[in-house]
Amino acid sequence: MSFERLVKKIDEMRNPTVVGLDPKVEYVPEYIKKESYEKYGKTLAGAADAVLTFNKGLIDAIYDIVPAVKPQLAYYEMLGWEGVKVYSDTVKYAKSKGLYVIADGKRNDIGETMKAYSAAHIGKTVIDGEEVEAFGADALTVNGYLGSDGINPLVEACEKYDRGIFVLAKTSNKSSGELQDLLIGEEKVYEVMSKMCVEWGKSTIGASGYGAVGVVTGATYPEQLVELREKFPSLFFLVPGYGAQGAKAKDIAGAFDKNGRGAIVNSSRGIICAWKSSGADEKEYAESARASAIKMRDEIVSEINL
Amino acid sequence: MSFERLVKKIDEMRNPTVVGLDPKVEYVPEYIKKESYEKYGKTLAGAADAVLTFNKGLIDAIYDIVPAVKPQLAYYEMLGWEGVKVYSDTVKYAKSKGLYVIADGKRNDIGETMKAYSAAHIGKTVIDGEEVEAFGADALTVNGYLGSDGINPLVEACEKYDRGIFVLAKTSNKSSGELQDLLIGEEKVYEVMSKMCVEWGKSTIGASGYGAVGVVTGATYPEQLVELREKFPSLFFLVPGYGAQGAKAKDIAGAFDKNGRGAIVNSSRGIICAWKSSGADEKEYAESARASAIKMRDEIVSEINL
Repeated sequence: MSFERLVKKIDEMRNPTVVGLDPKVEYVPEYIKKESYEKYGKTLAGAADAVLTFNKGLIDAIYDIVPAVKPQLAYYEMLGWEGVKVYSDTVKYAKSKGLYVIADGKRNDIGETMKAYSAAHIGKTVIDGEEVEAFGADALTVNGYLGSDGINPLVEACEKYDRGIFVLAKTSNKSSGELQDLLIGEEKVYEVMSKMCVEWGKSTIGASGYGAVGVVTGATYPEQLVELREKFPSLFFLVPGYGAQGAKAKDIAGAFDKNGRGAIVNSSRGIICAWKSSGADEKEYAESARASAIKMRDEIVSEINL
Repeated sequence: MSFERLVKKIDEMRNPTVVGLDPKVEYVPEYIKKESYEKYGKTLAGAADAVLTFNKGLIDAIYDIVPAVKPQLAYYEMLGWEGVKVYSDTVKYAKSKGLYVIADGKRNDIGETMKAYSAAHIGKTVIDGEEVEAFGADALTVNGYLGSDGINPLVEACEKYDRGIFVLAKTSNKSSGELQDLLIGEEKVYEVMSKMCVEWGKSTIGASGYGAVGVVTGATYPEQLVELREKFPSLFFLVPGYGAQGAKAKDIAGAFDKNGRGAIVNSSRGIICAWKSSGADEKEYAESARASAIKMRDEIVSEINL
């Protein structure tokens, strides 16, 4: 009912990072696409098939050194329902390899509808008395703009099924401040949001001191990471922006507590496109991803006390 | 590149309402479910099949009197990829009947990822040079917490493919004020968000005076509807909360301009579950939905100057 399962995996692997599975079609090596296009044509089904092969290769290459993956739902939805089927297959495959799966969907709604999202992504769907799993991720990213009505249904699922959520607080993008940095009294919007997250998660604190309601806070704002870490000791952080978005290991050190816990740092393109930036042969995309994941782990671990 | 297509359909039908297709399994009549369960079992596939039959019946019953439908993605995702396939089939079917389709997904992200959502829902996906349509709705609901980086990719698609977006401003739920009503200087968060929407949409104003970036503003807050209508004449409103959530026709009158334009009012359960509340035979679910949709139209049109 908190992030204990994730904390345990991070501790065991001594690796507080997550690989973002954001498989744009142009990131997939040609030899994989060729085979899929021969079967299904240059169609949504063809591209989806190629993405699944690509994802499985990436997962095989990193599952023993990385605790978690974070598929970004947008890249699957852009391939239609065929892509969403591949998302579903990717989650299942990652879980079969022991990976913790964070569904990056930034879902948000209220009441009955939020219960539906909760069932879809981290809970169970009841079909006339039969309980079935739809996508079955371990955690979900969430947008909290709608307030408690959008979060409580998720907290219920976190408690019942031992899952977690990450609510957007201070995001990694350049324009994040347009709303998030505005002052409400003496506090910025992202601080107000973080405070609400503390409240939403207070019944879910685990042995490590972290609750099931974490926040997303970008590596591209190192000062805010330090500030939020100090103010909100019960919030686990999902930290995007490392690598391709420009943040370095020293920038994210402030996200961690004195035991080197409390945060997981994501890199997507930096890992899954490593074969492109390193100039490796495309057939070595998986090995390149592994090498890049090891480098990221070592860089970050060297800056913290894990 | 604005909401002109929607405005035209509303004018032609003299009906500023949209039917929310939020098909929870328990809303589907037993005789439909029985047939689907016989084919596929009480599974995600079985429930999804029943939902598609239900949706097609609803669409057949209302397409000649209602300008638009608004499928809520959560209810399809809760049935896994099989449900998302039915979402896709529902959009196609609705469009084949001439309905304007608003995808209620409240999507949000940044940069490349938002481009992927944009391609998925209102644009096109490019697969190695081939342009294909993933889900192909006419408009998408969006959460603007991440600022311009999350909106600009959608505005591009609106311009290129003649689509629209509705950004959450003041939502219909009880807890919407926890963040949305807080004061930033002398303005509430939802006003700040609405102002940003004006800015985002300013290059997309159509003949009716409305741009492609609208807002979601709940029927349950009538005073805010009046206030936002006066302050922001270029923002088209999507107004949820009518019917099941408690708002009446007179509550929403303030959302419309002096020509009875500028808003579309949603009802979901009030229409699609009408057969339950009216005590009709379940086989008359479609007729009940039609009767309910006509009642809603007449109630609202009687309060405005359309």
